[in-house]
Formats: sequence, structure tokens, C-alpha cells
Amino acid sequence: MVTMARVSQAHLDARRRQILDGAAVCFARNGFHATSMQDVLKEVDLSAGAVYRYFSGKDELIAAIVGEVLGEVRAAFEEAVRLGPPPPPDVLVASVLSRTLAARESLTVDGRPAFPRLVVQVWTETLRNSELSAVLQEGYGAVREAWGDVVRAYQDAGIMRSDVPPDHVARTMVATVLGFIAQQSLLGPAPVEVLSDGLRALMSMSHEQK
Amino acid sequence: MVTMARVSQAHLDARRRQILDGAAVCFARNGFHATSMQDVLKEVDLSAGAVYRYFSGKDELIAAIVGEVLGEVRAAFEEAVRLGPPPPPDVLVASVLSRTLAARESLTVDGRPAFPRLVVQVWTETLRNSELSAVLQEGYGAVREAWGDVVRAYQDAGIMRSDVPPDHVARTMVATVLGFIAQQSLLGPAPVEVLSDGLRALMSMSHEQK
Repeated sequence: MVTMARVSQAHLDARRRQILDGAAVCFARNGFHATSMQDVLKEVDLSAGAVYRYFSGKDELIAAIVGEVLGEVRAAFEEAVRLGPPPPPDVLVASVLSRTLAARESLTVDGRPAFPRLVVQVWTETLRNSELSAVLQEGYGAVREAWGDVVRAYQDAGIMRSDVPPDHVARTMVATVLGFIAQQSLLGPAPVEVLSDGLRALMSMSHEQK
Repeated sequence: MVTMARVSQAHLDARRRQILDGAAVCFARNGFHATSMQDVLKEVDLSAGAVYRYFSGKDELIAAIVGEVLGEVRAAFEEAVRLGPPPPPDVLVASVLSRTLAARESLTVDGRPAFPRLVVQVWTETLRNSELSAVLQEGYGAVREAWGDVVRAYQDAGIMRSDVPPDHVARTMVATVLGFIAQQSLLGPAPVEVLSDGLRALMSMSHEQK
């Protein structure tokens, strides 16, 4: 008796991954607005039926891509505070950012990492796409909150001055990482150590000075 | 005898200012690529002849806008080191950024400050416009160098650890400011104090910790 082959979960996951990665490359290359679903189908070399089984269109694709990145980042921060006193900011940023970049290093546009371009393209698209703006604001808010918990842990441990609102530090840290990624779209890839060095140098300054 | 009125330099300067500001608002609203010279003429309410007397086209306009911002920032940093020991990073960043934002606060898109949108739009345009990319890289390099001088002054004064390459700190600081401005395009305006608070908190951390 011939049994019909069941499609394994691993296969479904791999296919989903393939579509998300192909879409990310398309969006990084030409921006969200100028990319059509036809472009995505061509990039991933799948039929429309195969792709639409997973995603209804560009909006779902970009929401899934943004949600995945921000979810990873948030989880990394939540883990950092769950396991006891969080590592200092230079170490924490380097660890989370390395992981985020490493997970996407196979995605390239013109031989350069696609991720910094993707971040810049998505950011611009939020200026005219209120749904995408809402997706990004929500994920962004969650990362800011997770960073806020890390900051409170520093303050509770007495290793950071406690007269500064945690959310101001959280916004500053998110800005730093965002700006560091955006820079790479203009200047090319830079090792994460550049950023952790810079933060470590800032952390070495005395706050007693005038 | 009737003498022909001479056009004063002040008038020429004001007209040039008017054109640059109108173009900046157009680029912030729709991006550089989607803005035509017709859009700029309409925004500034001047004839083509009046505008082309100052600028040959969009490329010259954006180069002038970007050059002006980066020139202001660089000058502010150069001034900071010329006058003796530079102020600490939180104070320096707040002072330069406040000035840069204040000079442009009358420019709005949909009732919000245009400058953060402009930064994001210009940044994206560098992904496909190699001339603009070159303009931005050059100005950016000059700001990084000026920041590098500030960092060396901190290190020479013994108030920042000296085992970190100044350019890494410069890149980190530029990233932080860039990211802080970009954030505002998504989240709305935030006072500069958010950023200076965040930097001050980082500076308060002991680098002796593990």
C-alpha cells in the first residue's frame, strides 16, 4: 500500500525560513515599497501557491521579518536579567548584536551584508506606512522595556547612578545600536568590537567631573 | 536720476535659505527620489529662473543641505576642543544636537519636525545614489575626525581610558546621535535631555566591574 508522504514540520519550517530570507534580501535591495510579490517569488524560486500558503502578502512578510528580529533581541535581554545581574552594557550589546548579525550573515546584497540595508529601508518605509509603523513601534517598545529592566538591575546593584529614568537609558542604548547598524549601510561592515569599545570608553569616564 | 536697485547680499542669502528650507521639507516629506524640482518650486513659491540661479538641480540642493548640517556639527566639535578641555560627552552632545535641531525647528511635515524624517530619507537614498553617498561619507568622515580629536583630549586629560582607539569612540558617539534622531521619525520628538541622561548614566558605570 502506498502512503502519501506527510510534509514534515522541519520541511515546513525550512520553507518558511527560505521565504522570509528571500523577502528580506528583496526588501534590503530595493526597499519595501518598490518590491513586488513577483520579485519575492523570483528570489526564492517558488510558485505563488507555495509562498501564499505561508504569507498573504508583503505586509505579512515584513511584519514577520521585523517581529522575528525584535523578538530575538527582546528575548536576549530578558534572558540577560533572568540569569542574575546582567553583564555591563558593552558586553551585553556586543553579545546580542553579534547574535543578531550572525543569524543573518548569509543574506547579502551586492556582496555586502543585507541586514543594515534592511533596517534602513524598513525604517524609511514606516514614514509612509502606518501599519508597518505600528508593527515597528510595538516591537521597539518591547525592546525598550526589556532594556529598561536591565537598567533597573544596574541601578539596584548600585553600579549605575539611579537618578536617571531607566527609559532614558533604554532609549539611548537602542539609539546607539540602531545608529551603529545604520552606519554600516553607508560605511560598510564594522566589527561589533567598535561599538563595545566605544561604550567601554564612555563607561570609564568619571561622572564627578564638571 | 533713478539708480537701479542693487540686490543686497542679505537678500541673496535669505533667498538661498528659503530655497534650501523648502527643498529640505520636500525631501523630508517624500524622499529625495520621489521629489521633483517642480515640487521644490511649488514649495518655495518661486520661479524656475529664481531657483536655478542658486542651484542647478536636486543633487546640488541635497549636497548643500547635507553639507550645511555636517559643517555645523563639525564646527561645533572643533570649537569644543579649541577652547580648552572639551565638556563631557553628555554635555557636548546635548549642546551640538540642540543647536542643530533648533536651527531647523521651523521646518515641519504634518506638524512634526522635518529634520528626523530628512535624515532617514537621505540615509536611504545613499543606498542607491553613489554621488549622495560620497557627499555623506565625506561629511561624516569629517565629523568622525572632529569627534576623534575630542576623544583624544579626554584621554590626554586622563578622564577616559586610553586603551580604546579614539575612532571607535567617535563611531559610537556618531551612531548614538544618528540613532537618536532616526528614532524620532518613528516615535515622535524627544527632548535632547533623554540622550544626555542616557549618556550620563553610562558614564557613571564603573569599568572595574566584571
